[in-house]
Amino acid sequence: MQDIPLTVTRLLVHGALAHGTSRITTWAGTAGGAEPDRRTFLEAGVRAIQLAGALHDEFGVEPGDPVATLMANTADHLEAYLAVPSMGAVLHTLDPWLPADQLVAAARLGGARVLLTDPAGLAPLASVLPRLTHLRHVIVAGGSESAAVVPGTAYSAEVHDYELLIDDRRKRYDWPEIDERDAAVLCHTTSAHAAPRGVAYSHRALYLHALQAQTPQAYGIGVGDLVLPVVPMSRMLAWGLPYAAFAGGASLLLPGIYDQPAPLAEMSERERPTLAVADPATWDGLLEELATRPRDLSCLHEAVVVGGPGEDPGGPLLAQELGWRHGISTAAAWGAPETLSPACVARTEGGGADEAGRYRFPASVEYGVLGPDLAPLPWDGESQGELLLRGPWITASYVEETGQPAPLHEGWLRTGETATISPDGRVAMKPPKEPSPEGR
Amino acid sequence: MQDIPLTVTRLLVHGALAHGTSRITTWAGTAGGAEPDRRTFLEAGVRAIQLAGALHDEFGVEPGDPVATLMANTADHLEAYLAVPSMGAVLHTLDPWLPADQLVAAARLGGARVLLTDPAGLAPLASVLPRLTHLRHVIVAGGSESAAVVPGTAYSAEVHDYELLIDDRRKRYDWPEIDERDAAVLCHTTSAHAAPRGVAYSHRALYLHALQAQTPQAYGIGVGDLVLPVVPMSRMLAWGLPYAAFAGGASLLLPGIYDQPAPLAEMSERERPTLAVADPATWDGLLEELATRPRDLSCLHEAVVVGGPGEDPGGPLLAQELGWRHGISTAAAWGAPETLSPACVARTEGGGADEAGRYRFPASVEYGVLGPDLAPLPWDGESQGELLLRGPWITASYVEETGQPAPLHEGWLRTGETATISPDGRVAMKPPKEPSPEGR
Repeated sequence: MQDIPLTVTRLLVHGALAHGTSRITTWAGTAGGAEPDRRTFLEAGVRAIQLAGALHDEFGVEPGDPVATLMANTADHLEAYLAVPSMGAVLHTLDPWLPADQLVAAARLGGARVLLTDPAGLAPLASVLPRLTHLRHVIVAGGSESAAVVPGTAYSAEVHDYELLIDDRRKRYDWPEIDERDAAVLCHTTSAHAAPRGVAYSHRALYLHALQAQTPQAYGIGVGDLVLPVVPMSRMLAWGLPYAAFAGGASLLLPGIYDQPAPLAEMSERERPTLAVADPATWDGLLEELATRPRDLSCLHEAVVVGGPGEDPGGPLLAQELGWRHGISTAAAWGAPETLSPACVARTEGGGADEAGRYRFPASVEYGVLGPDLAPLPWDGESQGELLLRGPWITASYVEETGQPAPLHEGWLRTGETATISPDGRVAMKPPKEPSPEGR
Repeated sequence: MQDIPLTVTRLLVHGALAHGTSRITTWAGTAGGAEPDRRTFLEAGVRAIQLAGALHDEFGVEPGDPVATLMANTADHLEAYLAVPSMGAVLHTLDPWLPADQLVAAARLGGARVLLTDPAGLAPLASVLPRLTHLRHVIVAGGSESAAVVPGTAYSAEVHDYELLIDDRRKRYDWPEIDERDAAVLCHTTSAHAAPRGVAYSHRALYLHALQAQTPQAYGIGVGDLVLPVVPMSRMLAWGLPYAAFAGGASLLLPGIYDQPAPLAEMSERERPTLAVADPATWDGLLEELATRPRDLSCLHEAVVVGGPGEDPGGPLLAQELGWRHGISTAAAWGAPETLSPACVARTEGGGADEAGRYRFPASVEYGVLGPDLAPLPWDGESQGELLLRGPWITASYVEETGQPAPLHEGWLRTGETATISPDGRVAMKPPKEPSPEGR
């Protein structure tokens, strides 16, 4: 067989050329007759090449260097997703909705000299910019670079306008040869009580996950779909949708800063996505919005509800409401920063309501449950233990700077999630047992 | 990220455990009230482990050794698909429908000391057995081992019954560590005019293809599907269906020796497959059968028609007949022994009949067309040239014994297929130009 590495570069080139006519629509609200920003995969791909050229030529970004984003879900953000890893650099996605102290800690963890931001990131950035002494260049997308200049604060970063930066830039880039095990993206855990812990995803991991995410086990998407990631691209890679959609030719509807129930309902009715991925609170809010102001969302084949360890993925009530009232099937996706997400997906398989919250894993994720003595438990649907995972897109360690070992047991990731496994291989996540008041 | 190799072993273990309740149904005809053979993925997985144990313990099969099959599409054959590569050995699929001389040449190319066969392979095997002097052990599945003993021929191979061989065998196997770039399966080209050329598929290639084959770009299959590979498992790995289905939990309907139109219609009406893959002649035959004796095939979401370089994949007439008369959507799949197949798939995308035969490739296959001077041609839908392919499941060379270089140009496979590429990235395969009688 030919020895071709599995890289984000390949996803970029493939999406831009083989699916050049697929579309990225970024919502811009409806005030003043605003129209969404629309560009094709080919246009986004060419702009990603131009961005790579600018990062290299203007700022000296080289393979291995971190480049940060602090952005909403937009086509510009997707271009950074594609450009930065393809040039061998490491994309570090920072979350504009983090508290200032956590944002500073996360930004320092990555240490990027160059950061891309947009209207969603400007205010949070302004509040922490003086503390980001490692930052040299801020690139502002969305045409509002002047807002980044906050009077009276002292910082050393230069501010650049994204459009001016890539305008007239060369449309070819001599992509470096990349080892598929090299880091492509850096994400981090967040906590109010602990320092952020960084997780580096390799090109190989992202490529394999982008394939898996297209299968019916995960999202089941391809050409002809329009997918709406409401989950932010600034956290856990928007649950894998951007890379999977770009690789598979599924068009993208990106909400920009309009991720509240009313504009989500509005953009869904107008643009007609076939699949949307959001957290339970967003789906609840959307249901309330629809109760107040009904809209036709029959376009949605599936509503994916996301959740992580210890979280409630909405449960059967949310699924019933979406299904009975609006005719929308639901799936629950489970993930964590320590694994590319979703790691597993639950949907009913014709067995009725009992099946809610029973997850299936793909071939790339081995799983098991361990008892308190760390012995493997049987797959009997009853034995409850900690869920352990192993596979090519699951972390082996946190990035070194954080000095914390990943929670591993003999090479397997300990998720901290309590689960049972049925004889049919499906996994039920259990809420942590309440300690009995009687101590029993 | 954890460094986990991409292997057939993982597909075996995952399918058997995570999809243990998915089913393999092997048709056995209807004569005398015969019932199909039914087993679960878990049962097949355990039997594959037992087969690996028998191959190792009884016949000394070690990693790297070839093991041949000469079998129809059956659950037993699938067990060999899983067992042989998982133990590090190399599965060599031989085609019972080859002319004797080609069968001998192919068998010698692989050089397997051990061969599994079944009622479909017994007669062809008997006719060539005296010439297969390298063969030491013949394992006969399907309970008819005595038929292999052909009176009056001289050969040295011992004959074993598959069921007796694995009966009571241990249900654990200490799988070896496998380099994902090692060979897992050996296939070969066939021709009446040339020696067979062997193509070795690596574990990595098979794993990546098994993922891709599950996506909507290819078959779009998963739990809840029942897939019917009419294309033989003895050629080109039945177009990737067995590994993809086992990895994704899609149940399998295997026709055994009953791959003629009447039993195919019969098993489809009774077992209700959701997807079937066959060559144009089989689909034509099935349509004739249905015209004579109508049956309800509304279960089929998609009929996949396969074809290779220079072949006609049935064209719009077959698609119209299946669609208009029976309400079955069609897809055309293109492949060749030099690439895991399908390499690309064509289906309409809402653009009408013009779209027939316009193929989409996945991210793992780079493609382009070259002119006669080997210069790349533009993607304008008009420039016609030779289709070249590159990717992790495309061959870099034929196996050494055949002494023939693969048709490569700067690392890309030359397919010999004439094609154009549209601006939207889709590829149209063209029949070879007829030489003009006037020489123009």
